[in-house]
Amino acid sequence: MSILVVGSVALDSVETPFGNRKDILGGSATFFSLAASFFSKVDIVAVVGEDFPRRYVKLLKDNGVGTLGLSVNKGKTFRWKGRYDYDLNTAHTISTHLNVFKDFDPRVPKDLSRPEFLFLANIDPDLQYKVLSQVKRPKLVACDSMNYWINTKRRSLEKLLGGIDILLLNDAEARQLSGESNLIKAASSVISFGPKAVVIKRGEHGVLYFSSKAHFVAPAYLLETIYDPTGAGDTFAGGMVGYLSRVGSINEAAIRKSIIYGSIMASFTVEDFSVNRLLKISRKDIKDRFDHYRKITSF
Amino acid sequence: MSILVVGSVALDSVETPFGNRKDILGGSATFFSLAASFFSKVDIVAVVGEDFPRRYVKLLKDNGVGTLGLSVNKGKTFRWKGRYDYDLNTAHTISTHLNVFKDFDPRVPKDLSRPEFLFLANIDPDLQYKVLSQVKRPKLVACDSMNYWINTKRRSLEKLLGGIDILLLNDAEARQLSGESNLIKAASSVISFGPKAVVIKRGEHGVLYFSSKAHFVAPAYLLETIYDPTGAGDTFAGGMVGYLSRVGSINEAAIRKSIIYGSIMASFTVEDFSVNRLLKISRKDIKDRFDHYRKITSF
Repeated sequence: MSILVVGSVALDSVETPFGNRKDILGGSATFFSLAASFFSKVDIVAVVGEDFPRRYVKLLKDNGVGTLGLSVNKGKTFRWKGRYDYDLNTAHTISTHLNVFKDFDPRVPKDLSRPEFLFLANIDPDLQYKVLSQVKRPKLVACDSMNYWINTKRRSLEKLLGGIDILLLNDAEARQLSGESNLIKAASSVISFGPKAVVIKRGEHGVLYFSSKAHFVAPAYLLETIYDPTGAGDTFAGGMVGYLSRVGSINEAAIRKSIIYGSIMASFTVEDFSVNRLLKISRKDIKDRFDHYRKITSF
Repeated sequence: MSILVVGSVALDSVETPFGNRKDILGGSATFFSLAASFFSKVDIVAVVGEDFPRRYVKLLKDNGVGTLGLSVNKGKTFRWKGRYDYDLNTAHTISTHLNVFKDFDPRVPKDLSRPEFLFLANIDPDLQYKVLSQVKRPKLVACDSMNYWINTKRRSLEKLLGGIDILLLNDAEARQLSGESNLIKAASSVISFGPKAVVIKRGEHGVLYFSSKAHFVAPAYLLETIYDPTGAGDTFAGGMVGYLSRVGSINEAAIRKSIIYGSIMASFTVEDFSVNRLLKISRKDIKDRFDHYRKITSF
C-alpha cells in the first residue's frame, strides 16, 4: 500500500547536554517518511528553499522516499533552532524561521492523489484540510496538531477533525483541546469531535490509544542513552502508519502492533541527532527491538 | 505463607481538590497489610498511641491483619497532614507529628519471628536493620525507603541494602541514591549495593523492575477518577508481596505478575480516601481488574 505525508522538511539546529548540531536534516515529513519507509512505499508533499542541500534530497530518495511532491521554492528552507535541558522532555525553541514554509500551499501531484494512507503532519489545520480535499478519500487519515493551532485555529481544527480517522497529540494538547485533565475523559471528548481514535503521546512514559470501544496502554521502550528527542513524535507516527500500511488492514490488533512499532522506531530516532540512527538500522534491528519490547512487557 | 510488615500506623489528615478528611486511618503498615490480606496471612509490627481509635484496630483484625505486634504506647498516635494539588502526583506535607513513633523501637514478638516474607516499610534504616536481625532469614525481604534517609542515613541504608532482596523506590529516590539520571543506569547502580532487584515506582506512569538479569516495564492501570493518592506505594508493595506469598515461589514470572497485582491494588486505593476502597472490594474485583489490565496492555 502507499502512504502520503504532508508536513515540513527543515534544517534544525539543536543543542542538547550531549552536543550541538547546526543545520541538520529535520522536519515532520522527514522523520515520518524515513520511519515509514521501512514498512511501505511513502511519498512526501513539502517545500524547501534553494539552499536545501541536494545531498538531503538524495538521502530521502536513496531511502525509498518519493520526492515528486517536494517543491523547491525561491528563498530559504524552514529553520528551527531549539535546546533541550537534562531531562530531555521539553524542547525549548530558540528561534523559528518559516522562510519558504510561510507561503506553503501544498499541492498534491496528480500521481499521488490516491494514497491509501495519509498522514497530515503538524501544520496549519486549514492546509491540512486543503490536502485532504485534494485526494481520493484514503483508507486511513491520521493527523497531528499542536497547542499553537488549538489556541489560534480551533474552529479550523474542529472542522478537520470531522474528516480524519486518528488524531495524534501529546498529553498536554489532549487536555487543552478537551478541557479535561483526566486523559480517559480527554480522549473521549476528543473523539466526540469526529476522529475514530486518538493516540496520546507521553514521551518517555509511552503512548495511550483510545477508540470509542477500547483503550490500549503502551509504555515506551526503555533506553540507556537519549541524545536528541527531536522528531520522536513524527517518527512514531511514521512507524505506526507505516506498519498499518504494510499489513493493509486496520483492525484493533493491527493498530496495537502499529503503536508498538511506532514506539520502537521513535526509540531509535532519539539515540542520535537528526535522522542519523534511522539511517543506520536494518529491518532486523527493528524486529529484534520489537521482540525485546514484547519480552520486557509480557507477564 | 506468612508475611510480616514493620512500618507506621497513623492518623492522616488529607486535603485534595476533591475534599478534605481529618484523622483518617493511614500509615505504611496499614495500607500494606490490608492490600496483602487479600492474598496471604499478614501480621504487623507497629506502634500507636492511647488515642488510637479501637475501631481501627478492629478493622485491621476483621480484615485478617494480625495485630499481635501492634503496641499501644503512652502518648499520641503518629499524625501526618498533607495536601495534593490538581495533578495529584506530589504530596505536600503540611505537618508531621511523630508522637509515639519518635521512640519506636520495633520488637518482633517471638511468635512472629519466622515470617516467610518480610516487608520493611519506609522507616529509619537502623530500625529496619534491627527488625531484620530479629527474624529468621525470610524467603524474601523487601524494603522501602525515601529521600530523607538517603540524605541523612546513607551509611545505615547501604548496610541494610546488603541484607535485602528487593528495594522499592520512586524514580527521584532511585536517581538520588545512585547519582544516575538514567533509570537503567540508576537501577544497575542500586543493585550494586546488594539487593537482587529494584522496583522503581513512577506513580501514574507505572513501575519499572530491574534485576541483574532482566527488566520489566508495567504501565499503571488507567483511572477515570483519582481521589487521594496517599498509600498508593505501600498498597502496591502489599499487593506485590502478598501475591508472591500466595504463590510461594519467587521466579521471574511470579515477580512480574506480582507487580501487576501491586499496581491493581494501588489503583483501588487511590479511588477513595484512606483505605475505604480496599474495604469495599472483593477478590473478584481484583481478578476482574487484573484481567482488564491484561486486555488493555496486550498486543
